[in-house]
Amino acid sequence: MTRWLLVASPMLLLIAPPGLAQEPPPMSEASETCLMCHEVLHPGIVSGWKSSRHAQVTPAMAMAVEDLGRKVSSEDVPQELTGVVVGCAECHTLRPGEHAGTFEHNDAQVHIVVSPQDCAVCHTVEAAQYSQNIMAHAHGNLENNAVYQDLQHHVLGAPTRIDGELSFEPPSADTKALGCLYCHGTSLAVTGVETRDTDLGEMEFPVIDGWPNHGVGRVNLDGSLGSCSPCHARHAFSLETARKPYTCKQCHVGPDVPVYKVYSASKHGNIFHTKQHEWNFDAVPWVIGRDFTAPTCAACHVSLVVDADGELVAQRTHQMNNRISWRIFGLVYSHAHPKDPDTTKIRNKDGLPLPTAFDGTPAADFLIGPEEQAKRRAEMEAICLKCHGTSWVKGHFTRYDKSHQTTNAATLTATGTLQEIWDLGAAEGPSAGGSPFDEAIEREWTDIWLLYSNSIRFASAMAGGGDYAVFADGYYTHAKRVAELQEWLEERRSSGERSESK
Amino acid sequence: MTRWLLVASPMLLLIAPPGLAQEPPPMSEASETCLMCHEVLHPGIVSGWKSSRHAQVTPAMAMAVEDLGRKVSSEDVPQELTGVVVGCAECHTLRPGEHAGTFEHNDAQVHIVVSPQDCAVCHTVEAAQYSQNIMAHAHGNLENNAVYQDLQHHVLGAPTRIDGELSFEPPSADTKALGCLYCHGTSLAVTGVETRDTDLGEMEFPVIDGWPNHGVGRVNLDGSLGSCSPCHARHAFSLETARKPYTCKQCHVGPDVPVYKVYSASKHGNIFHTKQHEWNFDAVPWVIGRDFTAPTCAACHVSLVVDADGELVAQRTHQMNNRISWRIFGLVYSHAHPKDPDTTKIRNKDGLPLPTAFDGTPAADFLIGPEEQAKRRAEMEAICLKCHGTSWVKGHFTRYDKSHQTTNAATLTATGTLQEIWDLGAAEGPSAGGSPFDEAIEREWTDIWLLYSNSIRFASAMAGGGDYAVFADGYYTHAKRVAELQEWLEERRSSGERSESK
Amino acid sequence: MTRWLLVASPMLLLIAPPGLAQEPPPMSEASETCLMCHEVLHPGIVSGWKSSRHAQVTPAMAMAVEDLGRKVSSEDVPQELTGVVVGCAECHTLRPGEHAGTFEHNDAQVHIVVSPQDCAVCHTVEAAQYSQNIMAHAHGNLENNAVYQDLQHHVLGAPTRIDGELSFEPPSADTKALGCLYCHGTSLAVTGVETRDTDLGEMEFPVIDGWPNHGVGRVNLDGSLGSCSPCHARHAFSLETARKPYTCKQCHVGPDVPVYKVYSASKHGNIFHTKQHEWNFDAVPWVIGRDFTAPTCAACHVSLVVDADGELVAQRTHQMNNRISWRIFGLVYSHAHPKDPDTTKIRNKDGLPLPTAFDGTPAADFLIGPEEQAKRRAEMEAICLKCHGTSWVKGHFTRYDKSHQTTNAATLTATGTLQEIWDLGAAEGPSAGGSPFDEAIEREWTDIWLLYSNSIRFASAMAGGGDYAVFADGYYTHAKRVAELQEWLEERRSSGERSESK
Repeated sequence: MTRWLLVASPMLLLIAPPGLAQEPPPMSEASETCLMCHEVLHPGIVSGWKSSRHAQVTPAMAMAVEDLGRKVSSEDVPQELTGVVVGCAECHTLRPGEHAGTFEHNDAQVHIVVSPQDCAVCHTVEAAQYSQNIMAHAHGNLENNAVYQDLQHHVLGAPTRIDGELSFEPPSADTKALGCLYCHGTSLAVTGVETRDTDLGEMEFPVIDGWPNHGVGRVNLDGSLGSCSPCHARHAFSLETARKPYTCKQCHVGPDVPVYKVYSASKHGNIFHTKQHEWNFDAVPWVIGRDFTAPTCAACHVSLVVDADGELVAQRTHQMNNRISWRIFGLVYSHAHPKDPDTTKIRNKDGLPLPTAFDGTPAADFLIGPEEQAKRRAEMEAICLKCHGTSWVKGHFTRYDKSHQTTNAATLTATGTLQEIWDLGAAEGPSAGGSPFDEAIEREWTDIWLLYSNSIRFASAMAGGGDYAVFADGYYTHAKRVAELQEWLEERRSSGERSESK
Repeated sequence: MTRWLLVASPMLLLIAPPGLAQEPPPMSEASETCLMCHEVLHPGIVSGWKSSRHAQVTPAMAMAVEDLGRKVSSEDVPQELTGVVVGCAECHTLRPGEHAGTFEHNDAQVHIVVSPQDCAVCHTVEAAQYSQNIMAHAHGNLENNAVYQDLQHHVLGAPTRIDGELSFEPPSADTKALGCLYCHGTSLAVTGVETRDTDLGEMEFPVIDGWPNHGVGRVNLDGSLGSCSPCHARHAFSLETARKPYTCKQCHVGPDVPVYKVYSASKHGNIFHTKQHEWNFDAVPWVIGRDFTAPTCAACHVSLVVDADGELVAQRTHQMNNRISWRIFGLVYSHAHPKDPDTTKIRNKDGLPLPTAFDGTPAADFLIGPEEQAKRRAEMEAICLKCHGTSWVKGHFTRYDKSHQTTNAATLTATGTLQEIWDLGAAEGPSAGGSPFDEAIEREWTDIWLLYSNSIRFASAMAGGGDYAVFADGYYTHAKRVAELQEWLEERRSSGERSESK
Repeated sequence: MTRWLLVASPMLLLIAPPGLAQEPPPMSEASETCLMCHEVLHPGIVSGWKSSRHAQVTPAMAMAVEDLGRKVSSEDVPQELTGVVVGCAECHTLRPGEHAGTFEHNDAQVHIVVSPQDCAVCHTVEAAQYSQNIMAHAHGNLENNAVYQDLQHHVLGAPTRIDGELSFEPPSADTKALGCLYCHGTSLAVTGVETRDTDLGEMEFPVIDGWPNHGVGRVNLDGSLGSCSPCHARHAFSLETARKPYTCKQCHVGPDVPVYKVYSASKHGNIFHTKQHEWNFDAVPWVIGRDFTAPTCAACHVSLVVDADGELVAQRTHQMNNRISWRIFGLVYSHAHPKDPDTTKIRNKDGLPLPTAFDGTPAADFLIGPEEQAKRRAEMEAICLKCHGTSWVKGHFTRYDKSHQTTNAATLTATGTLQEIWDLGAAEGPSAGGSPFDEAIEREWTDIWLLYSNSIRFASAMAGGGDYAVFADGYYTHAKRVAELQEWLEERRSSGERSESK
């Protein structure tokens, strides 16, 4: 009998989380009104919500939880919200005056796009942290940076030929929404009102430019930045979903940021994939060795993690870079993390809005210093050390730091080759008024730092390297691209000589 | 208590599907005879079959199920089959006169390759639908199209050098079976008989050319087209397998049709991967929000889907394109779906068997019109709307439609560049009697529409875009290839000028 | 009732493996001492170990298991180990005199890196087999082969430009550890002693060069070769982990050896991914059709597999190539498996340490002959035949063998093109004293056999081909690279003619 209970208990936990009453807590009348129609219209949304904690717990119940298990961080949730579950109306009619596009809908003042500032009513600490997360600023950091705009223009733009010459027309808003802004976030704007013929007769709805979108840096209709949906998906707000690496994969899958691919090929990823069926992804705090036996992305970067004795290993953070000393993603070199999540303020020594100069010099005034880097490294190591010995951890990070040096040195070499190509006039670089991203040979150079150096560094960080770091968008093609750049230069030199010797 | 039953019920269903008697239903003597040897020889096959519904239900039992839960669509299953489970003999000795290669085997008339027409005895509606599925015609659509044959020749063919010139010998039947025909299906043919020394003495077996194969468009020994095995794998015929995206991945994994990769990086894929352990993949009909909380490939394209009240959301279809308005896969441009699943009949305005001309003009007479496109779009949207609001769905499809326009426009630009290369004589195009697929620079052009445009469109369709659409075989390399084509042209122009000025 | 037990039994097995006493068996005092500190310091390690069989079974108990279920292969486990569970001290203080770097730690003689020779105390057969596995020699096979060193140099080396010319500096030890040696294994060496300030005061620890590493061919501090950790991960030593394909993926993920990717896209991988939740990954022996219904990597290459009657299908092997007739991985052509796992002894007809010559001639004296190949093929087929008919299996391997012929023939064609490039002086080949791997055009040639031919052959072996074999690093790009090599040659020929005609 005991054995049977042992097996059954995780299930029972799912059914009746500790602290939940047998009788479901009350729902507001407003939300009940919503469900009358929407349960029929959008059963997928409603069933997702019903499976969520929001449907099963009131803020008052959540605020009664003490210490590390507490999920509601606000101390002052408005009285009218505390006694009912968090239903449709609680979020979609919250702060109606703050949202452009709030519309009257069956006597309720509804807004379609719930924003982090809405969530902040109960989750104030997390929303404040996320506002300091560089991801919350992903829209502006891309759209308000002339260099990145130039790259985006030549990646997403419409290739056009006039008189046999190729140029790129600016990408349309739709293409940008499908491309970079899908992850970076669109900027939402109400552009009008439309009338739709619904099952309940004609109704009016706002027309929202930039919708749908759940990019991490979405600019919302209340002016707030970001979205909680990328990780806390849809209406189930499942911790399990947020803690599994498939969530991060949505935006971290290509060779520029091959996070999921590298993780999957790592020892950590191997253990996750083989053993996740035995883990508990819903426990708060999250207990190392009991709830999980290898980290997912969340364990190292976000979650509140404790050891089996309940001792704190790492605080929950929605800023997410508190444990990260380097920014792996090279622009064009990897570098210490930016101080401010708004990276448009950065100027390198050449006056460009880039965290490093083309010769590798970091824009040091705008980046965290060695002391902060060491502090963040120590916070990360505290997690590693719960499963690895000191020499293991030190050895890992020594190599990881070296991978930044060597990939950046290779980028410097490649940049030297490109500079010579520009000097030779074989391509038109910035000093001649050209874009560094519009010609094919320049894109060979871009590949080196944007795809292959990044892949190597991510593999080094998470997997410790290996076949991924070498053959899957790593060293192998990295070196090939460097050699191709050189070959191209030499061929143009020869052509030039052939022409001159005519 | 109710809740506990809710959780427990899927398990109980697995153990004892409703309608199944405690006593297993009878097996035919013929199948019992098969099992006497084959249970020992091929325990993997037999155990797979034993786990199947075929081993646990007779046609009579299946036909007693009313309404949407019914899985046997035929009304007139032959009397001798209705009272026994569907065992070895029921399928492998069915319609013996129709199959070339039927052989005597221990007094039974056995055929090795069971065809859709065999399955049609009980599943007549599904077989009829599948015969109208473009996939059923995948063999002939490839093998009987001169343009596609030319491409296949230069992809699978044997590269050979004679006097320093490269050419491609036609691919062997084995290479074709490993390559394109693995998915498209081989054409089976009995070429003789062989005698094998078995545990039970010498026995004769037919020799079947093109075997093994489970391509979707296999030409069978009874003349029927297609195979049920690609999705209803092996002898378990598991609905769970058919409904999970790993099945589609078998043929939809490369950058030409990166369906599984895109799905995995999408929000739908994220939810599937994190929550599938709570879903019920065996329920018929399949209930949105209860049995699954995010669609798999099958939910949108194939399955019989209802809402929690049992209201029909989408009919089961094995034609599979009833909800698809565009054919994403560009040849060389994406286009409205073909009217007829036999695409060899198509002629574009230049007389080529392609759904679009090289200048992008669709072969409109052979493609569905705007009205049918709108109808199919509406059928798809009906599913989307069960979990998404109207503005979400409309916004998604607006961008999706735009992605066709922009990628096709880019292909037109690239085709213009290639045409100029051909006109310049730097490569030998069709008008000079050459293949458009045999030279390296022509393959740069092929990459643009066959890999990168397709990837962008698939990402747009399923994920809404994102990092996959940009960096993983998407916009980033798409634009680079367009620029490389241009650079190549300009270099040849310069070389020409250098030569001329000599 | 019978059916219910059938379903329930795998669960019960997980709770109480047969033969385990209710009372946990005793732990050694030495291990108890370890746990006093390390349970607090490294809870992740300890919880992993507690979940392992090592924590729950003594060698004496394991040796009492008869026949195929026995996991301890040694007959003569030292007396002092037999009566206690296999804890920290049992492994980390074993054979202290044999390990460089054994250090005094709280009165125990501890070594950090447990080696296969330590494991051999109980698992002597497996350790002996693994020593004959080519993977155990992966470090030396790479590091002591001048040709492979040349390739590694131009893949991992630091690209540097001097006077506008590109060269590669030798890779650092750290880069090698992140790159090739991550999988191939580093060579460990004690380089000193360091004092660390720990929670328990100052303590001394050895400094180990090459640590951390769990490469398959690691050179250990007791001189033994290899590591058990790549597959038997960390301290849980989980059979489930070793048997799932995610383990092999750690090193077999890139386009050079895309084993996991190909498997995932195969029918076998499809069934594994959809049905693994119903399988038993811990049973020994492993029963086809009952414990699993489609093979994982381990089922075909490593595990002890029986049929439902307990009849042996395949013996357990840690040599792992007993069932492999061809070495798929081309160097530069695929070939019969090497006789000796130390491949540095091989000399081809040109005296190079390669299993084939540049013209494809195998170094036959060093490779297994047709008879041994046939024997290994038969051992593999015995497994296939448990789920597939004879004509299926024969047909599969006929095509597979052909895929070696056609890809090797294509490599020969490409090598001819490269030779002409070298002869023309357009690149500097070995006969002119150059490396065959340092110039961009040579890397086009390398791609052909190292990425695309390998991918085709792996896809042929495991998936039977398909979309992966064509478009995902297969035939499609394979043919393109061959054409690009030719185009490059022709352009250089033309340039030469233009120059000469000046």
